[in-house]
Amino acid sequence: MSDDTTCGGSTDEANSSETETGTSACGAKTDGGTAAETAQSDAASSGSSACGASSGSADSSGSSSCGGSKSATDQKVEATVDDFDADPGRLVAVGLGPGHADGMTTRAKSSLADAEHIVGYTTYIDLIPDEITEQADELYDTPMCGEVSRTEEAIDRALAGHDVAIVGSGDPNVYALAGLALEILESKGATASMVDFEVVPGVPAAQSCGARLGAPLVNDSVSVSLSDHLTPMEEIESRLHAVAGEGFTISIYNPWSRKRRENWETACEILREHRADDTPVGIVHGAGRDDEEVEITTLGELESYGETDLVDMTTTVVVGNEDTYVWDDRMVTPRGYESKYDY
Amino acid sequence: MSDDTTCGGSTDEANSSETETGTSACGAKTDGGTAAETAQSDAASSGSSACGASSGSADSSGSSSCGGSKSATDQKVEATVDDFDADPGRLVAVGLGPGHADGMTTRAKSSLADAEHIVGYTTYIDLIPDEITEQADELYDTPMCGEVSRTEEAIDRALAGHDVAIVGSGDPNVYALAGLALEILESKGATASMVDFEVVPGVPAAQSCGARLGAPLVNDSVSVSLSDHLTPMEEIESRLHAVAGEGFTISIYNPWSRKRRENWETACEILREHRADDTPVGIVHGAGRDDEEVEITTLGELESYGETDLVDMTTTVVVGNEDTYVWDDRMVTPRGYESKYDY
Repeated sequence: MSDDTTCGGSTDEANSSETETGTSACGAKTDGGTAAETAQSDAASSGSSACGASSGSADSSGSSSCGGSKSATDQKVEATVDDFDADPGRLVAVGLGPGHADGMTTRAKSSLADAEHIVGYTTYIDLIPDEITEQADELYDTPMCGEVSRTEEAIDRALAGHDVAIVGSGDPNVYALAGLALEILESKGATASMVDFEVVPGVPAAQSCGARLGAPLVNDSVSVSLSDHLTPMEEIESRLHAVAGEGFTISIYNPWSRKRRENWETACEILREHRADDTPVGIVHGAGRDDEEVEITTLGELESYGETDLVDMTTTVVVGNEDTYVWDDRMVTPRGYESKYDY
Repeated sequence: MSDDTTCGGSTDEANSSETETGTSACGAKTDGGTAAETAQSDAASSGSSACGASSGSADSSGSSSCGGSKSATDQKVEATVDDFDADPGRLVAVGLGPGHADGMTTRAKSSLADAEHIVGYTTYIDLIPDEITEQADELYDTPMCGEVSRTEEAIDRALAGHDVAIVGSGDPNVYALAGLALEILESKGATASMVDFEVVPGVPAAQSCGARLGAPLVNDSVSVSLSDHLTPMEEIESRLHAVAGEGFTISIYNPWSRKRRENWETACEILREHRADDTPVGIVHGAGRDDEEVEITTLGELESYGETDLVDMTTTVVVGNEDTYVWDDRMVTPRGYESKYDY
């Protein structure tokens, strides 16, 4: 998986903690000396620890992927609510949707336009139209890694009295930052109400990829991430067994990385235990990006794609159910209308 | 469930075939005599059969909810591809997202602005900003019911050479029209390529409601519809058992209608078999609408809401997993960061 691929603004990417602890060099960057200008000097140090968050992790894909170990202090919450005497500003978690500005909602754009500070992974900040970022007093972006310290930075800025938007692609509720923001707010002794915390939803990767494939997801559906960075593989396997035995269509996030070849192989084997080899499967790489690639294959062939450029952390895999068929290069999962309507 | 509630533009609603076969009077309405102006006289008759689609259905909620029986011809695909000699236009299925214009993506708006004809359920057409609908040559909207004939109308217009957008709220892949459009295209002997069929994704109800509740869906998640109009209840029950026993958060669509009280009761019982009574549950009624109501309760209390105005076909219910907790009036499902990061 090349850094280029890893760093693209795919919809999966903000939805993947694993991706944000990827293989590229890390360290916080501040546009216009933001951190230094922030009321909290702590913010600067939490900013500079953009890669430390995963150190001390027993997970090699975590600890090895962010440029080595960091000092313990880098991992701790720095400022707490008691360190701030300003009236808190607002904190909005904004989902940018697919990897292009056209996929943003009007509300996402207005939320960003209203924000004094916009915080996010560099690749996602770059997705925001210039006319919006130019309106912000400050942009704080860090390269891959640092989702925890970046989120803490956003919270510190809000507690320091600024109106802050923290951004990710996809939807903030899909393997993304809405929960982390609330968890860190709580750990600081702050509350969500204190910063008028709000989530602005976006189009998730499953929907972007489903649209690209046709209509594979129109019935009961499930999303499963193959990243065992934060969830034990045993749980992931158990969940796959449970849903593959039922009629759910399955959207697989974070399907493959060099460090997790086995997860991919195991997932493909589990799916084949429950579903026929000719079950249609859609593979969408880099949805909404310049390097977008779409391929429709079968469950029997799926595992062999693991070693190709088509399947990496920017890919979403959509597995059909027993009724899903391919017609005119589209995946279709019937809703059951044909059983009730004559057409 | 009042017609008013049934007819609101909630995100659930386009995601629910059941809702579109609800209790209000039916019959196709044409703005500016659209159908009559359409190249195909068949289109007019298929338009006028907006309620016939569900007749002859063994499902009482289907057959009784659309104003009684229709003649058999109302249920048949009218024009086939052979009846059209024009060069086909384009057909785009557009998801409007939550029940307010702010929730639309830029791409959804531009797709509608580019369309010559916009086809949809009256309530959703009304959600589109006037500056967009004013650009269209024709609007074709029908009241509740008639999703099949309305979709056929959109396809006939595209085959007749018009650039057509068919709209629904939420996402076209979530219990919605993307699949139906492809199924009807196929039944007409047409192809998706013939009309450059494209799906423009939108923010699904689960994401709109999840955002409103905080961060309940940040881990592996599933969507289940309790409508047995197109899916046998036995399958729905089996799916609920399968996912409730695992760590999935569960978004329940189409939770309650007068005709399906039992489905609600059964679903609540199944969930309680697998999860503790104090499991947090979020209820969002009419997300993004004027009558939006949000309440966070527990699984033990959930069933009692079935007879309240809070839970109807415009409601989405978000059931937490074993780790989900309520903090400062927000639902939070931890991703597991706390096991890897010290904050």
